[in-house]
Amino acid sequence: MAEDKFYDQVYSLKDQIRFGGKFSINPKEVKAIAISGMGGSGVSGRIFSEAFQDIPVITIDSYKLPKFVTRDYFFVAVSYSGNTEETLSVAKEAKSRGIKINAITSGGELSKICDNLVKIPSGLQPREAIGYLLMPLLNTFIGVNEEERTNIISILEALEKERSPIWQLAQKIVDSRKIPYILSWEPFSSLSYRFKTQFNENSKLFALNHTLSEQNHNELVPQLMNNSMADKFIFLAIEGDQDSRSRRRLEIMESKSASEIIKIRPKGESYLEKLFYILHYIDFLTVEVSLRLSYDPEDVKVLENLKAELSKIK
Amino acid sequence: MAEDKFYDQVYSLKDQIRFGGKFSINPKEVKAIAISGMGGSGVSGRIFSEAFQDIPVITIDSYKLPKFVTRDYFFVAVSYSGNTEETLSVAKEAKSRGIKINAITSGGELSKICDNLVKIPSGLQPREAIGYLLMPLLNTFIGVNEEERTNIISILEALEKERSPIWQLAQKIVDSRKIPYILSWEPFSSLSYRFKTQFNENSKLFALNHTLSEQNHNELVPQLMNNSMADKFIFLAIEGDQDSRSRRRLEIMESKSASEIIKIRPKGESYLEKLFYILHYIDFLTVEVSLRLSYDPEDVKVLENLKAELSKIK
Repeated sequence: MAEDKFYDQVYSLKDQIRFGGKFSINPKEVKAIAISGMGGSGVSGRIFSEAFQDIPVITIDSYKLPKFVTRDYFFVAVSYSGNTEETLSVAKEAKSRGIKINAITSGGELSKICDNLVKIPSGLQPREAIGYLLMPLLNTFIGVNEEERTNIISILEALEKERSPIWQLAQKIVDSRKIPYILSWEPFSSLSYRFKTQFNENSKLFALNHTLSEQNHNELVPQLMNNSMADKFIFLAIEGDQDSRSRRRLEIMESKSASEIIKIRPKGESYLEKLFYILHYIDFLTVEVSLRLSYDPEDVKVLENLKAELSKIK
Repeated sequence: MAEDKFYDQVYSLKDQIRFGGKFSINPKEVKAIAISGMGGSGVSGRIFSEAFQDIPVITIDSYKLPKFVTRDYFFVAVSYSGNTEETLSVAKEAKSRGIKINAITSGGELSKICDNLVKIPSGLQPREAIGYLLMPLLNTFIGVNEEERTNIISILEALEKERSPIWQLAQKIVDSRKIPYILSWEPFSSLSYRFKTQFNENSKLFALNHTLSEQNHNELVPQLMNNSMADKFIFLAIEGDQDSRSRRRLEIMESKSASEIIKIRPKGESYLEKLFYILHYIDFLTVEVSLRLSYDPEDVKVLENLKAELSKIK
């Protein structure tokens, strides 16, 4: 069954961590990075830009390369298939400006037009390949040693063995018939968006995501002042830095809100251990919700159909 | 009545356009810009970073100044009150790195610690002051001449005279009892977020926003595959570039979706005319929805209460 195949691949994140691909450059010579990518491919750039702040990391999720991106930039095009039209459009614009194209892809047109290729295994959905899509950036610019990989894999194996809390939360979400609303804060601000998109694609649920403290400047208003609308949402929070002001904000919110806020606390010591713990957790939860709603988590034919119709219009 | 006062101030956007404040620098000498700001103040940086792509414009909506921001950056702190704790935290970090603080504020601590001040009129809510918060950036880096100001004001006056379509849409949103879902695309991608936050603060409604084409890589799945959930949303689209692939995408989405997508097309010729048309439209619509739901559009006491509680914890 498709479901089984997909579920098997969720487990493959451990293998993906071992992926050693990286760009053959001296990272110390890079002054700024621009990463182009959409959807399940683009999310690797979003996560990386939060993880690595030594130099500017610009992310692009549209057809256009910003005017200011020049040959000084290390330009990376991330497209799992290698045929994403937005990413190809940006990459071709880069080429026309004399910027070298570094690519993370399993093949497609991108693998042919790029100057420097990190080839990743094919046969997955982009969103199942987050490890493959992210590791080349981490390997090149942050450096992940063998001990860290081993530690990350241990954390993921432990998570796989204690899945009953995830099953319970999945059932709670299904029973609630509510819309997931996900909060996150530094250093995991980018993960509430990943969580939302996995609910979208795996579970076929709309989801709302926001970051702290920005949420306290706008969406806190309906959360506390419009109880009948707040009642349409089930609130989840990915716990970031425990010593931050955002953590204090969450505590005050909990004391004022009529709705429970379900907290997901990453396990592990290092940043990368926690990062991959949450990514794996999100995958298990959203696939489990999908199965309990009798959806095929792998099925995103509607996205492919739209791409097919679009390809007829030039 | 508070409502009348607030509604009067929505009309003040025309006067705000006339605000001549700008930074006393040579913009051609600036190599990169970093703008710190939260909520209704921070939105000016989000809009500006899409409007001006000649040089990198980094926006910061958290407590931390990214490591890569150095003295080479033109750093701007935007806080209407001048007392936003996140923005002050970032500004102080900038100061400690020897970076000059340029401020757009009506007063507060920020006006005291900054090196270069553009002082804007006080007495408004930050979200009522979008013109004052945005014009100094546009005046300094893009340059808005008197003729353009006059044209923008004419467009806004015409919009004010033809408000009955806005009233009808406001009533439709109220009657629907649904959650607004807002799409936008280039060059107005940043405005779906502004729309969402104005629904939050003025109308006390949750709202979901996304940009095209990124939405087609994830949230299109529940929109087309989960009709019972899609039925909880009322879909709105701010029309951007009519010749773009994103426009084609919207057309295909409309042909496939069971839900109507209500399109808001900006009037005017130039980018700035269209930008301010949409900003004014958003204000009128979200305030009108608020009044029809019997909320006070100005009331965001819950945000102020949270700030007060937070200020007790150091």
